[in-house]
Amino acid sequence: MAAFHPLVASRVRISPLLPAAAAATAPVYACAAMPYARRRRFSAIVATAAAAAAAASSATEFDFNTYMGEKAAAVNRALDASIPADEPPAALHEAMRYSLLAGGKRVRPALCLAACAVVGGREAWAMPAAAAVEMVHTMSLVHDDLPCMDDDDLRRGKPTCHVVYGEPIAVLTGDALLSLSFHHMARTDSYPPDVDADKHPARVVRSIGELARCIGSEGLVAGQVVDLEMTGSAEPVPIDRLEYIHLHKTAALLEASVVIGAILGGGSNEQIERLRMYARSIGLLFQVVDDILDVTKSSEELGKTAGKDLASDKTTYPKLLGLEKSREFAERLLSDAREQLSGFDKEKAAPLLHLANYIAYRQN
Amino acid sequence: MAAFHPLVASRVRISPLLPAAAAATAPVYACAAMPYARRRRFSAIVATAAAAAAAASSATEFDFNTYMGEKAAAVNRALDASIPADEPPAALHEAMRYSLLAGGKRVRPALCLAACAVVGGREAWAMPAAAAVEMVHTMSLVHDDLPCMDDDDLRRGKPTCHVVYGEPIAVLTGDALLSLSFHHMARTDSYPPDVDADKHPARVVRSIGELARCIGSEGLVAGQVVDLEMTGSAEPVPIDRLEYIHLHKTAALLEASVVIGAILGGGSNEQIERLRMYARSIGLLFQVVDDILDVTKSSEELGKTAGKDLASDKTTYPKLLGLEKSREFAERLLSDAREQLSGFDKEKAAPLLHLANYIAYRQN
Repeated sequence: MAAFHPLVASRVRISPLLPAAAAATAPVYACAAMPYARRRRFSAIVATAAAAAAAASSATEFDFNTYMGEKAAAVNRALDASIPADEPPAALHEAMRYSLLAGGKRVRPALCLAACAVVGGREAWAMPAAAAVEMVHTMSLVHDDLPCMDDDDLRRGKPTCHVVYGEPIAVLTGDALLSLSFHHMARTDSYPPDVDADKHPARVVRSIGELARCIGSEGLVAGQVVDLEMTGSAEPVPIDRLEYIHLHKTAALLEASVVIGAILGGGSNEQIERLRMYARSIGLLFQVVDDILDVTKSSEELGKTAGKDLASDKTTYPKLLGLEKSREFAERLLSDAREQLSGFDKEKAAPLLHLANYIAYRQN
Repeated sequence: MAAFHPLVASRVRISPLLPAAAAATAPVYACAAMPYARRRRFSAIVATAAAAAAAASSATEFDFNTYMGEKAAAVNRALDASIPADEPPAALHEAMRYSLLAGGKRVRPALCLAACAVVGGREAWAMPAAAAVEMVHTMSLVHDDLPCMDDDDLRRGKPTCHVVYGEPIAVLTGDALLSLSFHHMARTDSYPPDVDADKHPARVVRSIGELARCIGSEGLVAGQVVDLEMTGSAEPVPIDRLEYIHLHKTAALLEASVVIGAILGGGSNEQIERLRMYARSIGLLFQVVDDILDVTKSSEELGKTAGKDLASDKTTYPKLLGLEKSREFAERLLSDAREQLSGFDKEKAAPLLHLANYIAYRQN
């Protein structure tokens, strides 16, 4: 691994944000095998986080749940309209719709729409891109779930695409969703008539470039390749490799979602780059929190499988840094993200601020 | 199957172009089991075609072989430069380069560059698109060759991507090539500085839309899905279904290659649509000739497997229409394609004319 993401550097300058008393005395290398007392402390930390989220939420007038519900509904309408239900080839369209309309919180589209709004754009200008980033996200899930990859049978509680439609259709569904995302962004009729006729085409080209870059060998695919290389390895995954995987598998598409929204909203280059930094922070934050939740969940579930006492195979931040340091890292990333929003109008920035809080403090 | 390609209609208005004496008395439904005398006639027809190609070639000053060699070399340079050889993730980049730089005639890029030139554009304006259509073509080969699809071990005489790098990397290589094609087209630094700054972004967006459309459920993927549905079916494939497969698996990307070249070259809408009709004709022609060559090859190979006398499993035009009618269809498609070029400057149209002849009269 030669070149890593610039954010990686931020890891080395984390200063402890939590009280020293709360800090773990040693890194936790095998969470699943952790004693009960320590597992209790995880829950306490998560509960504190939930309280902080509630506090953050009540501090403004912004109703995050209503906002997310409205955006998800609008994005779902756009996604539903993007694939014909009854046209041939029926098997393909059905599989595409099955995978794309399977629910989900639509975090990436919400980030895209919120970034468009924070730079002063109309959300409708970014709706085709919001749909596109969800298509790309779904494509990556469909291909990652394949038997030759992670071999997952369930996704969001439903059988995965290849289980229902077979492996060939699942490969082709991913391909079709990927090309549809670009088709959807490039079609003139995807956009409302009030976009700036002179500047719009250049903004679309730039957005498509950002989207394309975050998928291939600089993004999702690169992350999956390195993840596959690490899987089953007897050696522990070094932290720079772990961060490479997360930055590519998770953060790259979150970054593209935000940046594309800002471009289509007509943001200045300086605004776009500030939002890029915001997105990189929450992208990594997303994964650190995922790892913390994984540990918490594992320890709760341990009751059911008591006696097994097996260390989990998966490398996580808590395993490498210890849980307290992982939480400190998360706090630092959240504070970095918030800082990037400080130059924007407070009211317009509320969705992005609350999205960062949500990613930091979510319970699943 | 509800809506088929408009070109399908052309099938019903084929008038016999070959002398009545040469017409087959009955359609040939099982070519592999054909008597020797008839197999000789195939060779004669192919020889006549070769003579016609030679005649067409000598009728102008245009040196087709030199032209194709120069274009292939330029496209190969662009493809080589588009993927770093030594950067991580190494396995992915290596697999991408292995598949993309495996040789091939580069017919699609040549069509793209020739279409750009015929409308008065500089070929360099279309070079990023010429590279992109080859990336898309390669992606479709890599995914179609997968064990869960056509399960092919060899491609252009070399082991296929999944044989060399494994199935997961092959799936991801296809995904990365697909996204790279769009990244390559969207990057500003892919283009020379003399493109029309005002009109260029809109042309790129329109081109990306054409490329994206020909891949998914209106193009390559749709063709592969219907092809998979037909494979192993005991029923003979009806001709409209066969044509659907060919128009989507083969013609759609040839059409996009030509149309994108014309768009980036600054062609008028009328020119672009005429070139689209040209491309649709040669797209179907490509497949009809493939089928005729398949039959000829089969009949020649029959000597080696004499006594087997098995009808081939694959549905082809000769099987459905008979060989003579297939040739008539091919002649008609070639004449349609030539007709679309008649309004263009003769010298500038020479590459497209010769590409059509090449597709019609090629021997492999």
